[in-house]
Amino acid sequence: MFVNSTKIMLKKAALTFIILLSQFICLAQTEDSIAIKKISDEVMSNGQAYENLRFLCKKIGPRLSGSPKAQKAVEATARMLKEAGADTVYLQPCMVPHWVRGEKEKGFIQIANQEKYSLHLCALGNSNGTGKKGISAGVIEVRSFTELEQLGTVIIKGKIVFLNFAMNPTYINTFRAYGESGISRWAGASKAASYGAIGLMVRSLASNTDDFPHTGVMAYNDSFPKIPAVAISTNDAEWLSKQLKLKLPLKASFTNTSKMLTDTISYNVVGEIRGSEFPQQIITVGGHLDSWDLAEGAQDDGAGCIQSIEVLRALKATGVKPKRTIRAVMFMNEENGGRGGEKYVELSEKNKEQHVFALESDEGGFTPRGFGLDMNEAQINKVLQWKNLFYPYGVYDLAAGGSGSDVGPLKKVGAALAGLKPDGQRYFDVHHASSDVFENVSKRELNLGALSMAALIYLVDKYGL
Amino acid sequence: MFVNSTKIMLKKAALTFIILLSQFICLAQTEDSIAIKKISDEVMSNGQAYENLRFLCKKIGPRLSGSPKAQKAVEATARMLKEAGADTVYLQPCMVPHWVRGEKEKGFIQIANQEKYSLHLCALGNSNGTGKKGISAGVIEVRSFTELEQLGTVIIKGKIVFLNFAMNPTYINTFRAYGESGISRWAGASKAASYGAIGLMVRSLASNTDDFPHTGVMAYNDSFPKIPAVAISTNDAEWLSKQLKLKLPLKASFTNTSKMLTDTISYNVVGEIRGSEFPQQIITVGGHLDSWDLAEGAQDDGAGCIQSIEVLRALKATGVKPKRTIRAVMFMNEENGGRGGEKYVELSEKNKEQHVFALESDEGGFTPRGFGLDMNEAQINKVLQWKNLFYPYGVYDLAAGGSGSDVGPLKKVGAALAGLKPDGQRYFDVHHASSDVFENVSKRELNLGALSMAALIYLVDKYGL
Repeated sequence: MFVNSTKIMLKKAALTFIILLSQFICLAQTEDSIAIKKISDEVMSNGQAYENLRFLCKKIGPRLSGSPKAQKAVEATARMLKEAGADTVYLQPCMVPHWVRGEKEKGFIQIANQEKYSLHLCALGNSNGTGKKGISAGVIEVRSFTELEQLGTVIIKGKIVFLNFAMNPTYINTFRAYGESGISRWAGASKAASYGAIGLMVRSLASNTDDFPHTGVMAYNDSFPKIPAVAISTNDAEWLSKQLKLKLPLKASFTNTSKMLTDTISYNVVGEIRGSEFPQQIITVGGHLDSWDLAEGAQDDGAGCIQSIEVLRALKATGVKPKRTIRAVMFMNEENGGRGGEKYVELSEKNKEQHVFALESDEGGFTPRGFGLDMNEAQINKVLQWKNLFYPYGVYDLAAGGSGSDVGPLKKVGAALAGLKPDGQRYFDVHHASSDVFENVSKRELNLGALSMAALIYLVDKYGL
Repeated sequence: MFVNSTKIMLKKAALTFIILLSQFICLAQTEDSIAIKKISDEVMSNGQAYENLRFLCKKIGPRLSGSPKAQKAVEATARMLKEAGADTVYLQPCMVPHWVRGEKEKGFIQIANQEKYSLHLCALGNSNGTGKKGISAGVIEVRSFTELEQLGTVIIKGKIVFLNFAMNPTYINTFRAYGESGISRWAGASKAASYGAIGLMVRSLASNTDDFPHTGVMAYNDSFPKIPAVAISTNDAEWLSKQLKLKLPLKASFTNTSKMLTDTISYNVVGEIRGSEFPQQIITVGGHLDSWDLAEGAQDDGAGCIQSIEVLRALKATGVKPKRTIRAVMFMNEENGGRGGEKYVELSEKNKEQHVFALESDEGGFTPRGFGLDMNEAQINKVLQWKNLFYPYGVYDLAAGGSGSDVGPLKKVGAALAGLKPDGQRYFDVHHASSDVFENVSKRELNLGALSMAALIYLVDKYGL
């Protein structure tokens, strides 16, 4: 009996504990949902993100690392961070690659005795130039590296290789298609050069068909000649592929005078709200400030920078006093070097900083659908407990996944990472092209992303990870 | 012992049954997920929706009920339905209201001796005209009908009432904000006239701020004078509200020559694939073919029509042989009368048709997020069993909700109803304005909506409801 009654008592105590705990969780969730609603209302009613983005895109514009406009963007976002209410705003000097496009590229196709067909093309980022005279050769189209290997040096030598790796339209996740076809741009030049090609043309990595060429980073393998590499528009790629099937004499010519200069100085821009209880614990939220030289970089990644500034502003404006130090970081040089992200972690290590969490937004300012969680299982489970708090904002997809290339290096100092996952259907229509302009950003979508980020930062700050 | 062993045997049998049942469900789900993937691949790779929509928007354009272009749209979609593989295509004659805008409206504000400020404005649909001379009067701004009532006849008489009911930006669901502020447009004129107003200006029902006036339907209450009613752009509404606060002498003038003509003939367009097992059971999928006269009606509701045609095409192209009769219907006159929807159900009753299910897409061709289920609980539970099949397509929100105003009348003949719920953040930026153009539709988003609709139709056809 004694044993039993003890058991019963223990059970009762456990039950009481569970009831109290669940009441506590409910209470906390209610408190949190109220706080998040307050943040949401602030962002949706008084948000500064859209006007800040307009400034970045329309008053500054393209801002490739090392360019005078990148410097203007550094100054402008430092000002915006101050206006958002950051306690401290500072710059982290960082050497960056300095690639320049040179003159506007020219390219055309000559078929037999027909009139020349002008291509919509642009040099790939980091590509070498052709020299003023340009290059001219027959064209070999392939749809995979395997095809390229099969053709081999006999066929390829002296030719311009045309890598027509279309993004797979059947993938619902456009980033999967980008990842798969992206190798044509990243590694195509050296791969083609290894078989003797004298130049590379890649089909733009785009999910739609139009006349915009899409640039983006490429890298050379030092073992092979560093041949010039350009992207042609998807419409041109479709057209060229059809022409090649006719088996008429066909030559491509293009000229680009792009070149890599010596490294130059640039900066990450950092704005902080110092933590009230654990100031040594750092939570980072950021995007990358550099954009391709052809684009206003509205979706990539003006949106992510401006949303990160809005996170600080919204927390401040709604009276949240973070326990931990919240840092909004505009990373420099994501596009063609990743130096800003590396510098940030280098300084973190040097200053023995304690990084709890870092969140990146670099998939566009579209309606947020979720967060990719790049952290351990216990941390993922903790975040999943907050799932219901995101439902009212249409943010359902909290799951293990990628974060972002700027915050990625923070993994080695133990930070839990996450990435905002917006709707990705339109991203690659404009990505790295001159169509990535402010007009293609929706104010409400941009704000929804910002408030979702602010909500996650609020929760991580309050409960830790 | 006997009892116990029977119990155990029964338990075992039950367990076996459950295992078999779950295996069966798994098997069915696998079969279904393969069929849906096939539909998805077909739509994403070979979909005709985008090019059909281009034709409807760019070759035809605005198609208000009763207009020659509405007639062209009837003919064009009948052709598209045939091309999509419908067994039978036919028209349902239907009398529709015939409202015409007349000459381009003019409007301005005169403040003291300052230069006139031109307003971006348009007559509301179904509104009477001012006559060629226009009207001119002082302006009274209110932000609610309660405010209007409080001011009363003494203040309102002889004035132009300016209903500045902004859509609430803090609502995540833009349709909620539209519903709340929409009363200003629907009922504002008679409400203002009941206090002696001589004209109505409403703030455009838009979720952004720009220079486009947004039209839309209004209705008069026969008890009051039928005063002319116009919408002004959101930018103008913000500007005017500021000016009124300065308390300077201010007059508004506007001219519109719109008028309601006598009813005219138009048509619903119907394309069918006849059911192989239960041809008498009808499943309808549709959108509305008419658009406002100012807009190409790309999102509203060219998208929904073209998606419905794509549903037929995709089922046919992937070899689905529906058990039940699948009908794609282009309803006429949703915008300013709803006559097509009424005619459809009238004919259904007359022909003693058996309507199982009807799905409408009339919230834009944006990324689909879910379906609103307007059906009984048992039917909702049945649909919810298919939830996992929609997950790979980002379609999560299957829940009780609204369907659409064209299929709505089918409720009285016992049909279960549903409505596609796409991402709604951008819809009211362009809704009923000349900015609702083809260029604002994303091919991938449009296709995702179409394939989700096709998947739901496929499941309802296979399993019934």
